This record gives sequence, structure tokens and C-alpha cells, in this order.
Amino acid sequence: MGVKLGILGLGTVGAGTVQLLQDATGRHPLLEELEIYRVGVRSLDKPRAVELPADIITTDLESIVNDPAVDIVVEVMGGLEPARSLILQALKNGKHVVTANKAAIARFGNEIFTTANEAGVYVMLEAAVGGGIPVIQPLKQSLSVNRIHTVTGIVNGTTNYILTRMQQEGSNFEDVLADAQKLGYAEADPTADVDGLDAGDKIAILASLAFGGRIHLQDVYCEGIRQVSKTDIAYAEKLGFVIKLLAIAKLHGQDTSKLSVRVHPTLLPKAHPLASINGVYNAILVEGEPIGQVMFFGPGAGAGATASAVSSDILNLTATLKTKTASETKPNPLLACRHQDYCQIAPISELVTRFYTRFLTKDQSGVIGKLGTCFGNYGVSLESVVQTGFQGDLAEIVVVTHDVKEGDFRQALTEIHNLEAIDSIPSLLRVL
Amino acid sequence: MGVKLGILGLGTVGAGTVQLLQDATGRHPLLEELEIYRVGVRSLDKPRAVELPADIITTDLESIVNDPAVDIVVEVMGGLEPARSLILQALKNGKHVVTANKAAIARFGNEIFTTANEAGVYVMLEAAVGGGIPVIQPLKQSLSVNRIHTVTGIVNGTTNYILTRMQQEGSNFEDVLADAQKLGYAEADPTADVDGLDAGDKIAILASLAFGGRIHLQDVYCEGIRQVSKTDIAYAEKLGFVIKLLAIAKLHGQDTSKLSVRVHPTLLPKAHPLASINGVYNAILVEGEPIGQVMFFGPGAGAGATASAVSSDILNLTATLKTKTASETKPNPLLACRHQDYCQIAPISELVTRFYTRFLTKDQSGVIGKLGTCFGNYGVSLESVVQTGFQGDLAEIVVVTHDVKEGDFRQALTEIHNLEAIDSIPSLLRVL
Repeated sequence: MGVKLGILGLGTVGAGTVQLLQDATGRHPLLEELEIYRVGVRSLDKPRAVELPADIITTDLESIVNDPAVDIVVEVMGGLEPARSLILQALKNGKHVVTANKAAIARFGNEIFTTANEAGVYVMLEAAVGGGIPVIQPLKQSLSVNRIHTVTGIVNGTTNYILTRMQQEGSNFEDVLADAQKLGYAEADPTADVDGLDAGDKIAILASLAFGGRIHLQDVYCEGIRQVSKTDIAYAEKLGFVIKLLAIAKLHGQDTSKLSVRVHPTLLPKAHPLASINGVYNAILVEGEPIGQVMFFGPGAGAGATASAVSSDILNLTATLKTKTASETKPNPLLACRHQDYCQIAPISELVTRFYTRFLTKDQSGVIGKLGTCFGNYGVSLESVVQTGFQGDLAEIVVVTHDVKEGDFRQALTEIHNLEAIDSIPSLLRVL
Repeated sequence: MGVKLGILGLGTVGAGTVQLLQDATGRHPLLEELEIYRVGVRSLDKPRAVELPADIITTDLESIVNDPAVDIVVEVMGGLEPARSLILQALKNGKHVVTANKAAIARFGNEIFTTANEAGVYVMLEAAVGGGIPVIQPLKQSLSVNRIHTVTGIVNGTTNYILTRMQQEGSNFEDVLADAQKLGYAEADPTADVDGLDAGDKIAILASLAFGGRIHLQDVYCEGIRQVSKTDIAYAEKLGFVIKLLAIAKLHGQDTSKLSVRVHPTLLPKAHPLASINGVYNAILVEGEPIGQVMFFGPGAGAGATASAVSSDILNLTATLKTKTASETKPNPLLACRHQDYCQIAPISELVTRFYTRFLTKDQSGVIGKLGTCFGNYGVSLESVVQTGFQGDLAEIVVVTHDVKEGDFRQALTEIHNLEAIDSIPSLLRVL
């Protein structure tokens, strides 16, 4: 007996998934057991990239999640509502759910996973992070025998594309963004991408899986790339760094009960495995004991890659459904969500990191001494201080610190800002 | 009720695995359901890196695979026999098997998987390829919804370490090998590594999983790195390449019923994702439709990394055992071996690839013309011909071809070898 899919949404990802499933030759033979049973769309009149019998397409999405014949609901419509309500309804009806919806999972994961656990069904979300890269399943399964201490990702293709071009061409953020919008690599409203919010959703999901706890999205610190300048990219290059928008989830120091979860542009040593990830590609580096470092690299978006991830979840559920006997009720602990408690997240002021800062100062003797004194007052130890040159009448000074508590560093900066010799502090970036 | 493990072997990997399992805090909670029930060793007197109750250790390995209480046999002893017989006996006794033994799987996979399928149990081998990198499970599961056309790996840490140092230091193979042996990165008898045999075992396993067929190991073409010279590494560098020992499994042209499976040193464009994998690290690049490229990177060996892979297989089986009801008999198609037929493998003479060749010739005018004519006679089209300088009285000429059938290229070389002006052909390498 075939496994019946109810697909919600027939946009890029939905159409890509249908295309993959309709053309099963040469793929895992289990895909042939699948039936695209119902497909929900917003409008019946829109031209489609895929051919489907007219009688399985409907605009009544609720009828799909309530249809007793549907085994798996595939939510690829995106957005918060009605996606959230439809997912919850499907779960309550005892259907497994596959979703690519990082925004809904990051915001409503708590009620979604609680509902799934109560109903004894699974929520699969490989496509929510890293496009086609298999990273969710390895985190839930293979890597979970490790004590993971850090997950670091380049998980937003748009910003990585923009930063890569800024670096390679020496261009400004605004110019590259405008071009990326023309080429379709950035949305007309680029906020979610360039302000780090999309990456924030994704690192919340990865942190939850890696550290076995739920994450309050509002605890995730998000800083985007609008303030990254070509000047800083050039200085970083000279100092042996590239600038990447990193999403980081990490044990907070020795305290294994607390996490630091954040997104910000970061100076990354050129030899770091993530430093060579360019363009729209994504990569996720997982570090733990005893495995050391493993990295997953691949296309972070696109119809084909995302369809691969969605289909892999469908395949996984199909294997489970085909294996299950009527009497079976025990959920597989590697597929179910295993955490119910929230992780404690340290505020960004408690972060311990290195900083890169660029100052414009009046051309007076003794400015570097004053900077050093202010930093010293707050226990900020400096790795390098370089007067890089002049911008008009103003001297430009680039400072890289050793590891310092962010709160202490910010206090020092406030004091420095008030120094008569300081004109402005155009850049402030964290260093990995 | 706990799941009982019978572990065969307590060397580096065995001890690493026991250590991980004995210290389950902070890892997947399912690990707490495991019991290290019996451990088989060669000698009882050897000092151990781990503490175990004396009464569970035995030198009678057969008693472990025949013990009705044992649920999972973990074969981490290595070698061909008695590993093969013990694995087969365990399977016949209805026990699942976890193994890190690439040599046994590559040689005896046929009978091992047939026996497992007949007994309705699973053989798990994440640790057999790529150390700690989760690549076997993604290939069997997530990626199998794709039509995979190429798997390319750096799967031998020893040779990658040697080539990396040769490149970074401009050193000779022999010198770096000797040093690697001193440092413990290469074995006293380095044959299996430097002649590409270990990589051959691993690509046979990867090919089998990626293309859903069994592989005759003798069909895998293996060429090692002994003949890679510092001269060629330097020329490759100038031409924009690095030299890596690649293990490649690929559909043979348009013919999807035939594979090319091979290991050889390869000139790799510097921008290729595998080009920046250095030192003892491994990486596996999988290409397919619709996913595009995904790459898995991590430590290719070491007690911790391999223990992570072995333990992830144990975790997977434990989840299956804990989920299974007494009445259940259907095997999970994503865990079982799904292929019984052998893949057809094209002989290396049918390979279509680019070549890099270095010639030493007498310093006569017209030599390049003669080379070009010979190549032309066999349909070999040239991308570049550069006279790079002199070695003593002899002129040195480096040729890079376009794609050519290896058989045709070899015929042209035989003819060139007979030219009066040709002194010798010191190097011949394939180009990706």
C-alpha cells in the first residue's frame, strides 16, 4: 500500500519536490511507494512548473491536513500563518509532518514539537537549515554520541554572496546588494537576510538539536552585515582574516548549562575551514568530543537542493511507516524531538570574544596611549594597534583585542568615545 | 531492558569506543541503555587504556558471537580473518553488526550483506570510511533521493598528509614519508596507504552505497603517490592546480549502467572544494541531481573520531531495537543493504580524462611539433604545451591535454617513447 502525501504549497520548493518524486527512476526505490495524493495551492489558475491531475489540487488546505487518508503532510508554503495552524492540525490528526519552514519552527517549535510528541508523530525539518546539506539528521543521530560544544555556520546564502563579492571586487555593500537584487540572489526587501534574522532562525534550530534544549528566539543576538565596509574587508585581509556572517551556538565558557547563540559578521582566520566557503554556498562546522571538527558543505538554497532535503525527510518517514507494524506504538527516539526544556542563553554582554575596531582620531600625539589606557581601565588587553593611515585630516587606527568580555569592552568604548581626540568609531566587529 | 554489546577488539578504536560509552553524560540519552556485556581481546595480560570488569573480558571471541544474550556485535579488531568469520557467525546468530573494517567489507561485502539480509539483521559501517565524518548514513538515507553521478574523496589521511607537506615544504616523497613514519602518521609498512589500496577499499564501499550495486574490488584501479615528485607539485602549482590522491566513483559517461571507480594522484584546480583539504583530514564530495554538490569534511582517523562513528552506528541500532516490537519482522529499507547485483565497471583504458605529462627531450628544434603530431595521430587534443626549462642537457616539456580516452593517450605515449628525440617521460598524472 502506498504512502500518501498531502503537499501544502506549490512554489519553488513544492514544485521542485513534486518534480523529484514524479521522476523516481535512479533514486531510492522506496520513493516508488509514494503517492502525491493531494496538493494545496493558493490559486488554481496560476501556471505551474509541474503537471498534476486537476482533481488532486485544491485551495482548501485544511481539507488536506484533515483528510484521514493522508499519511504525511509536506508543508512547503512558508510564512508563519496559516503554516503554523496547518502543521499543528496535521500533527493532532496523527500525521507526520515534513517542513522547510525555519521561521515557523524557530518561533513555534515549542508547541509544534510538544504537539508532535503527544500525538506520537514526527516533525522532520532537514530543509529548514542549509538547503540540501544533510545536517539536521546527522546532528540528531550520528553526531549526538558526541558532547558537542560549538556549532558554527554560514547559513545564509544571500549575505555570503554579498560578502564574497565585496571581498573579491572591493565593492560597497549597497552596490553589491543592488546587483544581487537584480540577479535574484537577494529579495526586494532584504531585511531578513542582511540583518541576520534568517540566520538567527537557523542557528536557533541547530542549537536546539546540538544541545538538546529549546531556544527562545528572542534570546538569539542578531547583527547583520549592513555596517560591513569595504575598508574593513581590506584591513581584515591584511591582518589575515576574511569577514563572514557567522551563526554561532556554543557552550558559554566552562558552564555547560548556558549557551551563547548569536549571529554577527566575524573576522575569520583565512585557514579556518569556513573561510573558503564563498558565494551562495552554506557550510556548518560542528565541534565536539571526541569527534573534533566535522564540516558539512553544500548549496544553501535553490529548488533542487531544497527538494532533495524535503524528499529525504519523506523517504525517512516512508521507511518508518513501511517498517511499522499495526501494533507498534513506540516512537523512534532518533526521529522524535527529545527535549522539552529551554536552554539558558547568556546575554551578549557576557560573551567572551576578540574584537576588531576601527577609530578615526584627531592627528595628535599620544592618541594611541590614551586608547590603551582606557582599554586597560576595563581589563581589555590588546593584540595589535596599528595606525593604518589618514582619512582627510583624521588618523585611522585599527585595534584588535585579545579575548575580552563584551560588556567590559563596550564600557571601555563608551569612555573612549568621550575622549576629545576621538572623532568616531566607524567599525566594530568580532574576531573568531 | 538494556541492549547488550559484544565488542571484538580493544585496540585504539575499541578502547576509544568503550571510553565513549562508559562516559555517557552529555551525550544522547539512549547511550545509557547500553551495556558493555562482553569484550574479546587477543591477550588478557596486555595493559589497557580502559577499565573493564575482568569477568567480561575473554580471549574466546567465538563465545561472544555465539552468546544468545548479545544483541549487537561490534567488530573493531580489524584484519581479514578471523574478523570475516566472526562477523558472518554473528549475523547467522541473528545479531546486528557494527564494523570499522573497510578491508573486510570491501573484500567480503557480498557474503556479509547476503548473510545479513537472510538473517534480517543489519551491518553498519560508518567508521569504515572517513573516520568520524558521517558520510555512510547520509549516502544510504538523505542523499539517496538524488541521482548520484559522482563521488570524489580524499579518504586516506596518510597520503594527504604527505602530499600536503610535500607541497608546503617543497620536499621529496621519501623524506616526508620517513618523517611521517617517525611521527606516527604513516605505518612502518606504508604500502596500503601510499599505493592507494586503503583508498581503493573505501571508494569501493562508497561506490556501492552511492550507486546501489556491489563492487568487485579487483575492478577498482589503484595508483598510489610514490611517483609524485616535488617537481610536478611545483609545476602543478604554477598551472593553478594542487596534487591530491583522489578516490573517484563516477557514472561512465552517458552510460548509467557502467561506473568508473579508481584511485590515483590527480591535479585538482585550486578552486575545487577538495583542493583546500589538507593534512590528515578527509573529505568526500557527492554530486547528484537535483542536489548539486555536497561535501563532508572531518578527521579521517584517530581513536576519538572513529569511536564517534562506531558509537553512532550502535546508537542507530539501539534506537531500532528499542522501537521494535516482538511481532515486528520487516527490516528497515534504509538500514538494510538494498543491492544484490554487481556494478559493471569500465576498464581504466576507457576512462575519459585530462592528462598532465612531463617529458625530458633532447634539445632539438621541432620536438614540440613531433609530440603534437604523435598525439594528433591518436586524436589527443592538447590544452597546453610548455617548455619549462632544462635538466642538464635535456629540455623539459610539460603537456596538459583536453579530455581524451586513456587508451588512446597511452598509445600515443608509446609512439612518443620511441621517438629518437625523447629521453624519458618522468611523470604522468590525471587532471580533474
